[in-house]
Amino acid sequence: MEEQNQPEKRIEGEVLFKGRMLRVERDTVRLPNGLQTSREIIRHPGAVAIIALQDQQLLLVRQFRYAIAQETLEIPAGKIDFQEPPHDCAVRELREETGYRGTMEHISTFYTTPGFTDEVMHLFFARDLVWDPLAPDEDEFIGVERIPWEEAVQMAQQNKFNDGKTILGILLVKGRMG
Amino acid sequence: MEEQNQPEKRIEGEVLFKGRMLRVERDTVRLPNGLQTSREIIRHPGAVAIIALQDQQLLLVRQFRYAIAQETLEIPAGKIDFQEPPHDCAVRELREETGYRGTMEHISTFYTTPGFTDEVMHLFFARDLVWDPLAPDEDEFIGVERIPWEEAVQMAQQNKFNDGKTILGILLVKGRMG
Repeated sequence: MEEQNQPEKRIEGEVLFKGRMLRVERDTVRLPNGLQTSREIIRHPGAVAIIALQDQQLLLVRQFRYAIAQETLEIPAGKIDFQEPPHDCAVRELREETGYRGTMEHISTFYTTPGFTDEVMHLFFARDLVWDPLAPDEDEFIGVERIPWEEAVQMAQQNKFNDGKTILGILLVKGRMG
Repeated sequence: MEEQNQPEKRIEGEVLFKGRMLRVERDTVRLPNGLQTSREIIRHPGAVAIIALQDQQLLLVRQFRYAIAQETLEIPAGKIDFQEPPHDCAVRELREETGYRGTMEHISTFYTTPGFTDEVMHLFFARDLVWDPLAPDEDEFIGVERIPWEEAVQMAQQNKFNDGKTILGILLVKGRMG
């Protein structure tokens, strides 16, 4: 969007932190009413997540998430490498996290939490899986689990998952299946 | 979770930034394989979002989101104030953003993006709306729009929304309605 069309105009900004994955910025902006405020923004490279079905079973990964200090059961997902097309990232992440390569159909792209980050999530639907593993990232420790698809749908509707993209992905694919 | 049960043990950490809304931390952790790595974490106070139905129409808010430099159409949502119960926050945010007070039913709680933030989102279902406005935050400029419920469900399934909680919330409530 062109700067002049933005209702909130950037006056100045600073990069507060530039890390391995995140860049934290704080901008001073002028609001539509003429007042100034600050906006804290987390810049993120973007991510993919994959609904992968094999014999009517959903592939899930169990892993420890440091940010929330607990283990989660999520659909496979990962950050986009620099200049990596989302489709290629989905193929790579599914191979790294589950060992499988599949056909990848794009089904949705959304912002995970646009109030403070530009993280965009590309959701794919993988089928026709064949075993073709890639080594995972050296700081990832992931276990793969399988849940029958209809049970996964029930779990999503009954709040048995606590990860947004997992619930969203399951319900979206369920809706497409009718 | 007790520190000793965590597969990733915190060795040291620093607060890199403490802002109006976010706190950015970087911890050095020991991995299950004995190696060290760093984890960048965004601490967030948590948020609520509300599926609000009035005469079979969904209430949505149109607003400029600075982090993604574009306008979005989202379900009403907002950050939890210090020590505010999520239910009270949902009542307050719906009044501030749409002018309506409703009965609030909790339907889901999930992490928006647990790879880097502890932001938790509490999703509520509001009905029996009555006009009872509260003044919005002074840096919020929000327009309310109504979309027939079945049209909103179709839009969610056809990627017409680009906000995760909006898609998730609509599909979850749709599933409960059968």
